Amino acid sequence: MSLKGACIFGQSGGPTSVINASAYGVFREALKDPNITRVLGAAHGIKGVLNDQLFDIGKEDPAELELLKSTPSSALGSCRYKLKNPAVDDTDYRRILEIFKKYDVRYFFYNGGNDSMDTCNKVSKYLLSQGYECRVIGIPKTIDNDLWGTDHCPGYGSAAKYIAVTCAEIYRDATVYDTGAVTIIEAMGRNAGWLTAASALAGLSGCAPDLIYLPELPFDVDSFIARVKQCYEEKGNCIAVISEGVKDKDGVFIAEYASKDAAADAFGHKQMGGSAAYLAMRVKEALGAKVRPIEFSLMQRCAAHCASRTDVEEAVRMGAEAVRAAVSGVTDKMVAIRRAEGGTYAAETQLLELTAVANTEKKFPLEWITPDGAGVTEAFFDYVLPLIAGENPYCWQNGLPRFAQLKKVKA
Amino acid sequence: MSLKGACIFGQSGGPTSVINASAYGVFREALKDPNITRVLGAAHGIKGVLNDQLFDIGKEDPAELELLKSTPSSALGSCRYKLKNPAVDDTDYRRILEIFKKYDVRYFFYNGGNDSMDTCNKVSKYLLSQGYECRVIGIPKTIDNDLWGTDHCPGYGSAAKYIAVTCAEIYRDATVYDTGAVTIIEAMGRNAGWLTAASALAGLSGCAPDLIYLPELPFDVDSFIARVKQCYEEKGNCIAVISEGVKDKDGVFIAEYASKDAAADAFGHKQMGGSAAYLAMRVKEALGAKVRPIEFSLMQRCAAHCASRTDVEEAVRMGAEAVRAAVSGVTDKMVAIRRAEGGTYAAETQLLELTAVANTEKKFPLEWITPDGAGVTEAFFDYVLPLIAGENPYCWQNGLPRFAQLKKVKA
Repeated sequence: MSLKGACIFGQSGGPTSVINASAYGVFREALKDPNITRVLGAAHGIKGVLNDQLFDIGKEDPAELELLKSTPSSALGSCRYKLKNPAVDDTDYRRILEIFKKYDVRYFFYNGGNDSMDTCNKVSKYLLSQGYECRVIGIPKTIDNDLWGTDHCPGYGSAAKYIAVTCAEIYRDATVYDTGAVTIIEAMGRNAGWLTAASALAGLSGCAPDLIYLPELPFDVDSFIARVKQCYEEKGNCIAVISEGVKDKDGVFIAEYASKDAAADAFGHKQMGGSAAYLAMRVKEALGAKVRPIEFSLMQRCAAHCASRTDVEEAVRMGAEAVRAAVSGVTDKMVAIRRAEGGTYAAETQLLELTAVANTEKKFPLEWITPDGAGVTEAFFDYVLPLIAGENPYCWQNGLPRFAQLKKVKA
Repeated sequence: MSLKGACIFGQSGGPTSVINASAYGVFREALKDPNITRVLGAAHGIKGVLNDQLFDIGKEDPAELELLKSTPSSALGSCRYKLKNPAVDDTDYRRILEIFKKYDVRYFFYNGGNDSMDTCNKVSKYLLSQGYECRVIGIPKTIDNDLWGTDHCPGYGSAAKYIAVTCAEIYRDATVYDTGAVTIIEAMGRNAGWLTAASALAGLSGCAPDLIYLPELPFDVDSFIARVKQCYEEKGNCIAVISEGVKDKDGVFIAEYASKDAAADAFGHKQMGGSAAYLAMRVKEALGAKVRPIEFSLMQRCAAHCASRTDVEEAVRMGAEAVRAAVSGVTDKMVAIRRAEGGTYAAETQLLELTAVANTEKKFPLEWITPDGAGVTEAFFDYVLPLIAGENPYCWQNGLPRFAQLKKVKA
């Protein structure tokens, strides 16, 4: 089972607060493993392999590598690059094999979400088909938490914590006057409502949003306005949280309504803006109230200063487990998290087939949405609370973040 | 000089992350002072006085009062209520005097920004004119940092820290791909650029924004687009930070270019927001690039989880100093911060005339703006770095904020 050679690690897809924690896990484990002769990092994921832009991680300062645990967004750079079907065009694959041979790469670790697991799967299958011995392991990463087969994804816990904390803080701000206000908050998650649902946790700080809309159920603008109006008239204010991906019964994204009926302004420009901006405009028209749309935008995926300690630790562990699995002979798998049975939260590692994981989305369970379609149940709280537990140590220097500074020495 | 009686404390204007730290300072000091017979908190600032909605702070749990130091947004509720000129209509003033007599109020502490100091000043002058002995002290609060006469305002340091940290994190996210992107970030500050300038601090984390535009200089949309284009073509991406209050040479807010129907609040202020969205649309048209507008919205003033320890400590101190000054015989003043001479940062307390403070704005110094009009100088860094120093302990419970829970017992 022993296989000696170099490893390549790549980061792909949208950043998270903890993606570099998985990089740290891979690097720490790979650098000390005698089977791994050299540890390489790919610039911008698979594009770094194709372009022969590889960094020698062994030349990095170990103290800087430690700082990866609190440095958000892919330290090696990321990509959104879709590999073609090799039966149609195998150019990229031949290039990948060429580079792997050049550096004697026998271990390939790829960190990302659905699309990245597709890349990982295709590379794995191609290398198998060519009889080139290389162990390929995917490492999950996505704030969206929509990867199939794993209890949850590294990245989700920290984004969920950011959303919960920020919703609680915004609630305090948005309800401070005795004059009414409506606040419409938009969270990421185009097809899955995991992030939006996390806003409900603000209720445990005494700051529960009034209405929560996930993309798993059809969204009706008029019903939404009616619910907001009712809440506003009863309480004097209303805080609604919606997914960026809410869509009507015909599958049209509400965000698309904005560009559809947005009257171009005097200059003929179309207004930009998402679901919250559009709904805020509609609510303002209907209620005449003060309405503020708020988008969590990039902050929800890069606010490492608010990361979940549990999430960071699990992200490190997934990276390390990927290396251990590969060295022990496993290939063509993604490492994943299984929740241990019993009342106390514990995460176990499992290995899933890449083919099964790639391109399968895990939606928010419909039974965790309240019957009125505008909230989530206690079962979701039980699921999510362990994932946001604990605060990750952040490295501050003079009141500002001190991020990892990699030398990125060309391999 | 000794004066015995009750005190009333009120919070007014827009919330900050540390406004309750000043409340804590007032309460701690007033509750232990033998001259102050009863400590009352006004619901929604001066409106709580007018409506006889006063809480008995002595009935609160001391442990909950401690938590005020990490609880954002006015715990007693806030207001934006403009008192009339008493020469024209003294109805409100007569009511205030009636309530003060009812509770034997001899101390009045009012925490807020420019408009709140105007309220404080008017109440003070009216009580003087009526020969009613009451010591009135203003306590500064504003994220905008635009209060005249004080080196800086409690609330600013924490908002500046949030903006610096978040700009650094966003920079890492927004530059992660090797495909280009333009990010346009909007910070608060209607007329003063202090908050927007704080984005420059991200440079000390290796994440300097490329362009920074304050409202102190006229803003030209075409020049802005040209600068963004140049930066984008040279670097492959561009991060610009603009104040919500940027306006053209004729004084027209850029946000108004997008929307002409801005409602005005009680003080005649226009509802702001939307500059970044408008500019993003224009840049997208001009460059065809991926452009993302980001508004820091309410988060910049309520993100107590990212508060500056220095700011919190100074906010507590301002509250406590207000009480000590009043008890020692001072009235008709605002407590303020003077920076001690010498190389090491130290804050000294000073007392300013309310008349001088009320309604005078302190702009960002033009000499701290770089000659190209799109950045700030080292002198600003020297000024601001001590204000964001240190991290305030945040009270976490099960991964979520544990805010102060006041009983609010009616007086």
